[in-house]
Amino acid sequence: MNFTAGFIAVDWGTTNRRAYRLGADGRHGAEFEDDQGVLSIAAGEFPAAVAIIRERLGDLPMILAGMVGSNRGWVEAPYVPCPAGFGELASALRWAEPGRAAIVPGLSLLSEDRADVMRGEEVQLLGAVAAGSIPKDGLACHPGTHNKWVVLREGRIASFRTVMTGELFNDLKRGGILADWLGREVEVGDAFRAGVRQGLRGGAMGADLFSVRARILLGRARAEDASSFTSGLLIGADVHAGLADGDGPVTVIGRPELTRLYAAAIAEAGRTACEVDGEAAFLAGIVEIARRIS
Amino acid sequence: MNFTAGFIAVDWGTTNRRAYRLGADGRHGAEFEDDQGVLSIAAGEFPAAVAIIRERLGDLPMILAGMVGSNRGWVEAPYVPCPAGFGELASALRWAEPGRAAIVPGLSLLSEDRADVMRGEEVQLLGAVAAGSIPKDGLACHPGTHNKWVVLREGRIASFRTVMTGELFNDLKRGGILADWLGREVEVGDAFRAGVRQGLRGGAMGADLFSVRARILLGRARAEDASSFTSGLLIGADVHAGLADGDGPVTVIGRPELTRLYAAAIAEAGRTACEVDGEAAFLAGIVEIARRIS
Repeated sequence: MNFTAGFIAVDWGTTNRRAYRLGADGRHGAEFEDDQGVLSIAAGEFPAAVAIIRERLGDLPMILAGMVGSNRGWVEAPYVPCPAGFGELASALRWAEPGRAAIVPGLSLLSEDRADVMRGEEVQLLGAVAAGSIPKDGLACHPGTHNKWVVLREGRIASFRTVMTGELFNDLKRGGILADWLGREVEVGDAFRAGVRQGLRGGAMGADLFSVRARILLGRARAEDASSFTSGLLIGADVHAGLADGDGPVTVIGRPELTRLYAAAIAEAGRTACEVDGEAAFLAGIVEIARRIS
Repeated sequence: MNFTAGFIAVDWGTTNRRAYRLGADGRHGAEFEDDQGVLSIAAGEFPAAVAIIRERLGDLPMILAGMVGSNRGWVEAPYVPCPAGFGELASALRWAEPGRAAIVPGLSLLSEDRADVMRGEEVQLLGAVAAGSIPKDGLACHPGTHNKWVVLREGRIASFRTVMTGELFNDLKRGGILADWLGREVEVGDAFRAGVRQGLRGGAMGADLFSVRARILLGRARAEDASSFTSGLLIGADVHAGLADGDGPVTVIGRPELTRLYAAAIAEAGRTACEVDGEAAFLAGIVEIARRIS
């Protein structure tokens, strides 16, 4: 693949996609984001969806990451088992168009008692390591619909754990006894922190969630705090599980509106959290992959 | 209230209602069930909905229990705090029609660190005690959308804990990454029991649920087992929390299609479970309340 005239990087998820034109030196040019996530595109329609990206950003080679490489995506790029770093990702790229469009594979974890998968976050995590914005060894988390806790060793992803906190929160907003109370924006304040502290105890999620309703009915909590409290509860339980995977400071990488919630919850648990912007890390990761295959 | 000519007992929940004509001796006469739960009936429409019951079963006095006494029901019957037995319920009945229609209140639990509410299950639980079908002291559970773990002492409800397991399972069926796999009927078999064992470990629910998907994607589990496994996982976590509330055998009371799942999960945890039919217990409870106010 020849990147001297620049190339296009695409972070193509389930519900959204972001595309960037990058110069030969890795600098950031034009870009756009839209709601044409993988689930919006019918089987067989990916070539047309890719053509739209090139119409907007130029007729250039591409590197794509995320759910675009899943069995619902353009071309399936089989999971690469952990531990894995850029070497494993680069040598397992799947070419959707020979020499013109490469899909980065996701990672898998399989052991006697655990099974897990990731697609897209690995580029951000390893990109942040390459950019020097997170340590080569330690614990990181990547909040989202499916939050990932990642153990880094010598700059590679040694193991990881997914907690579907964002999805559970969305489920509760969509219907059921708490839905009417969960429309408000989540704020990091007393209600959020109280929820985090309860979640950190690691109690039964189904009991903790019902108590949100009971506390309001019995006058022990305000309905307007329910959204922040419930978010805190779910994130606290997530952090309780994730912090067990490693000591020391935790890097929280991703979209700032989510990393600030996790950073606050990790601080409430008495650990140090550092926030890193996921977009910059994604671009650093894609540039590193481009460098390895040029 | 005069029951010599018989009366009508109504178990009126969120999504369904069951009504029974009972004779002066407590024996069971005509009955019906329909989908006119509390959420289907607009404010102000309860008198008409009650008239339909009397058209079908006779122009008789009534005793009603369940969500019909909530703030979304016919007339609100404020919660009675635990510990409580038939004495407390009978003396806190709320008369929707003076001398003609009594609503049984729900129960509340409020302490420094817990808040909980129940409406409807208390009649079944105390009714089962009155009928001699469960011990006066011990642990019971009442599965449903919101499962209740109940500590009985001297024939009264000393405390209880709600775990919204049924609601979480319904949420997961309604949308998200597991929905496509959760349509099959849940069966008590190897997949269910494996889910129960994982749930009994008390791990992070959001991580355990995501692993259902990962195991299928990585060929470690069969898609057709996902429904039973996931049900087992949620019920196992519920049982893990609930069994901590008391020693000895556990009575599981309610609808047989749910009690058999909980009984199997409790057995998997190494405890003895006895199943009791909720409908018979409800009728025994209502008859005892009628006796006390006649």
